[in-house]
Amino acid sequence: MTRSIALFGTGLIGGSFALALRRRHPDLHVVGRDRDLEAARRALELGFIDTIAGSVADAVRDADLAFLAVPVAQMPGLFAEIAATPVPADLVITDAGSTKGDVVDAARGALGTGVARFVPGHPIAGREVHGPDAALASLYEGRDVILTPLVENPPAVVARVHAAWTACGARVTRMPVEQHDRVLAAVSHLPHMLSYALVAQIVDSADAALKLGLAGAGFRDFTRIAASSPEMWRDIALANRTALLAELDDYIGLVHGLRGAIDAGDGGALEALFDKASRTRQAWKRGEMP
Amino acid sequence: MTRSIALFGTGLIGGSFALALRRRHPDLHVVGRDRDLEAARRALELGFIDTIAGSVADAVRDADLAFLAVPVAQMPGLFAEIAATPVPADLVITDAGSTKGDVVDAARGALGTGVARFVPGHPIAGREVHGPDAALASLYEGRDVILTPLVENPPAVVARVHAAWTACGARVTRMPVEQHDRVLAAVSHLPHMLSYALVAQIVDSADAALKLGLAGAGFRDFTRIAASSPEMWRDIALANRTALLAELDDYIGLVHGLRGAIDAGDGGALEALFDKASRTRQAWKRGEMP
Repeated sequence: MTRSIALFGTGLIGGSFALALRRRHPDLHVVGRDRDLEAARRALELGFIDTIAGSVADAVRDADLAFLAVPVAQMPGLFAEIAATPVPADLVITDAGSTKGDVVDAARGALGTGVARFVPGHPIAGREVHGPDAALASLYEGRDVILTPLVENPPAVVARVHAAWTACGARVTRMPVEQHDRVLAAVSHLPHMLSYALVAQIVDSADAALKLGLAGAGFRDFTRIAASSPEMWRDIALANRTALLAELDDYIGLVHGLRGAIDAGDGGALEALFDKASRTRQAWKRGEMP
Repeated sequence: MTRSIALFGTGLIGGSFALALRRRHPDLHVVGRDRDLEAARRALELGFIDTIAGSVADAVRDADLAFLAVPVAQMPGLFAEIAATPVPADLVITDAGSTKGDVVDAARGALGTGVARFVPGHPIAGREVHGPDAALASLYEGRDVILTPLVENPPAVVARVHAAWTACGARVTRMPVEQHDRVLAAVSHLPHMLSYALVAQIVDSADAALKLGLAGAGFRDFTRIAASSPEMWRDIALANRTALLAELDDYIGLVHGLRGAIDAGDGGALEALFDKASRTRQAWKRGEMP
């Protein structure tokens, strides 16, 4: 059981993790650290951390679990700091990064054989608001968390991370790192790229103001994710480059085919594609799998 | 003022038009006609039509406004039937088709000089449910309606259609046919194609069930419109072929560029594109124009 956490990143993701675990384990001790000192102070005021760590060494000294909830681009630096610090023998480390291949590479590079204590993770949960005040004890309830255990991880180490997420109310799925990155590229990273691209196309075109003035509910939903953080999505696109490029290539090919069917007036091909998509989307909404 | 309407198509769009006008003009007489006799009977039960017309001639005999709310693919046949029928001298015709170039071509072809009485229109409003029971008197309140008047239309004819939509509570915008089709291709037709394509790509890929099982809120919103009617969108894609192909070509070019930036690790180019889209989408949500 987790008794003491080193929380790196005291915003929405880290804060919600601490709040959720504390609900189950009221005696849990949480030491927080954030590059943004204001965020750490606010986390202390809100009570989901007990102290602010002055250094990485202070944060992990008495921890049995370190939770890395920092932007993916900050992970390599954080792993390097942890590698340079004495840590408790039973310390387990996990993270909440949206991509896993690059985080695992950074962890292996910095920790060496110590990567055995690092279990990569990714909670599929979020909110449109961020920071300590956005943290919710219920954020992970009924949500999926993907763990991508490494060959170096002893089963007991994976089990501890798994149990922490279960205690948060999450549904844990395990898969290889590469599969995680391909799955997320398809259902999350690719749609973000496509949504950004549509808005960019419209704003740079003739009649942009007229178009935006007449855009309705379809545009609204399709482009909601185009309001997301440019920095975060730049980092994700680069971090998951290989899988995302494969998805983009498939997509460009598919849209080329769709273009050809429209050009050729091939109503049958269009209807078949739309019908397959429509039936799939309707089944998905009902909670059915293909 | 409109006193008597010939309503072709007694579903969501036509029914809502009749209900909205009747609220302002309680003495309005509505004659309904629908290829689906059950839909016409239900409209009669719901009271938004007063009689069911046995023929096109019966429908228009005493009408001063004919409202064509049938699928775009049925417009040519309906115009041909109207052309073959004696109509009142002051009859004005308008429609609610999602595309305008093809509808205008059909109207010109069938009506000849009689096209002067036809004012093309497109209400930017809808619901996810269809048919007579989905009709709402409030459907068009505060919504945009685009009219694309023809050079043949006398101003008084356009004014009558304009006034009918204003009486429904709509905000009327006028523009040329070609501009309407380009604007709608960009903000509506293109996103529908792209949303269908993403769902089709996922369902035909490896790990489809796993991907759909882990798809979150971003996927949900991006693909909501992929649940739309395959037949209707096949017809729209073909009807607005020219404008849609131009938008698709621009989009494929933009996504190619995005792909290149990811492949080259060009974070600056990615962030610039995402940032432009993100600021535009956020301003749009606040009701600001670029």
